[in-house]
Amino acid sequence: MQLIIGNKNYSSWSFRGWLMLVQNGIPFHENKLTLFSDNFYRTLEVYSPAAKVPVLIDGDVTVWDSLAICEYINEAYCQGRAWPQDKVERAKARAISCEMHSGFTALRNEMPMNCRARRHIELSEAAQHDVARIDQIWREQMLKYSDNGGWLFGEWSIADCMYAPVVLRFRTYGIEVSDLSKLYMDKVLQSAPVKAWLKDALQETDIVPEDEAGTDVV
Amino acid sequence: MQLIIGNKNYSSWSFRGWLMLVQNGIPFHENKLTLFSDNFYRTLEVYSPAAKVPVLIDGDVTVWDSLAICEYINEAYCQGRAWPQDKVERAKARAISCEMHSGFTALRNEMPMNCRARRHIELSEAAQHDVARIDQIWREQMLKYSDNGGWLFGEWSIADCMYAPVVLRFRTYGIEVSDLSKLYMDKVLQSAPVKAWLKDALQETDIVPEDEAGTDVV
Ligand SMILES: N[C@@H](CCC(=O)N[C@@H](CS)C(=O)NCC(=O)O)C(=O)O
Ligand SMILES: N[C@@H](CCC(=O)N[C@@H](CS)C(=O)NCC(=O)O)C(=O)O
Repeated sequence: MQLIIGNKNYSSWSFRGWLMLVQNGIPFHENKLTLFSDNFYRTLEVYSPAAKVPVLIDGDVTVWDSLAICEYINEAYCQGRAWPQDKVERAKARAISCEMHSGFTALRNEMPMNCRARRHIELSEAAQHDVARIDQIWREQMLKYSDNGGWLFGEWSIADCMYAPVVLRFRTYGIEVSDLSKLYMDKVLQSAPVKAWLKDALQETDIVPEDEAGTDVV
Repeated sequence: MQLIIGNKNYSSWSFRGWLMLVQNGIPFHENKLTLFSDNFYRTLEVYSPAAKVPVLIDGDVTVWDSLAICEYINEAYCQGRAWPQDKVERAKARAISCEMHSGFTALRNEMPMNCRARRHIELSEAAQHDVARIDQIWREQMLKYSDNGGWLFGEWSIADCMYAPVVLRFRTYGIEVSDLSKLYMDKVLQSAPVKAWLKDALQETDIVPEDEAGTDVV
């Protein structure tokens, strides 16, 4: 199995696909490309008509898109256990995962993932709205689960893949959240796969100007 | 079961959720709200923290987001049959569905769904790129399936939910596609659920200025 990803410092969607594999202990070959480079587009041309990372290649299966990769891996390798087992909870987990997958564009544009940086930015009203909604989601789930597993639905699930990059963004830009949401951020930041991703990210030296936002915090 | 939707003339995401239920013959109460009205936000406040349509309420299950609704209905009412049964095909169906769910923002912004209108617009380069990619997806699937079911994966699937609103957009704005893609557009436009949606849409008289784009074709 091969996973094509972008720079670990910057590529938030890649991080989601990668986390799904690593968290579930699935062996794979990591093929890391520099975002937006000639080699990036040349390689993707071979594997993905959508020309975006992540892309998973597993024998005759090719899946582009992070959420599609999560659903595929869940079915093919996790016996469905990467979503909550309870039907009501699973429906909610899919709803918040899809909400992230299709929305929060202001937040994504204004706060690009940039693991190594510590920055200050002025957020637009739309991005502030996005931050408040995410804080609401995390707080609500932590009310139920902070003492009971600590992931968004207690046990780790695909919903945590979807929100992990947001934790890194909030850290980079010093975003204030509720105490319960802080517990969730700590849970994510303390987990071994996330630490391993960050370690690799901090060793990278490429600068992708498209993803540099805000002013350095000293 | 209740499905909250927006105006049928305009609400492309609502159309996806609605189609999933109607195509699969699942009885439900349709709760239609005028997009962006006070009543729209007041009602959504009760049911969905994301404040967007569609929202599905099925007993103690509440699902916002069209793709999450499709996955929920597929599991709870279709025994998994709303995705292709073959593993390779299912992975691809999820990839193109997720590609639509999270992407094509230029196309969506510049060509809002507007069933009753026939308009001309000048597309940006990004939107032209989106059109070309969609034509590529449809053509590729029709090469395999135009004589063999005629839906994107032969039999009807959730992928057809995701692309049905695009068919209506292309019709409204007179977008040219390949002959194979035209076959797919016809398949969608001739199907009974789509015809029923259009019939209702054409009876609506509300004007939503945010979703009016282009100049009338005479
Ligand atoms: N919906 C996709 C989004 C993937 C995406 O936008 N990836 C970015 C990097 S994080 C990319 O490959 N951008 C290259 C480009 O847009 O040319 C997913 O969930 O995987
Ligand atoms: N990701 C959502 C998108 C839903 C969406 O954007 N719905 C629009 C109408 S088509 C809406 O409710 N807009 C209201 C608003 O943005 O205030 C889905 O797939 O259901």
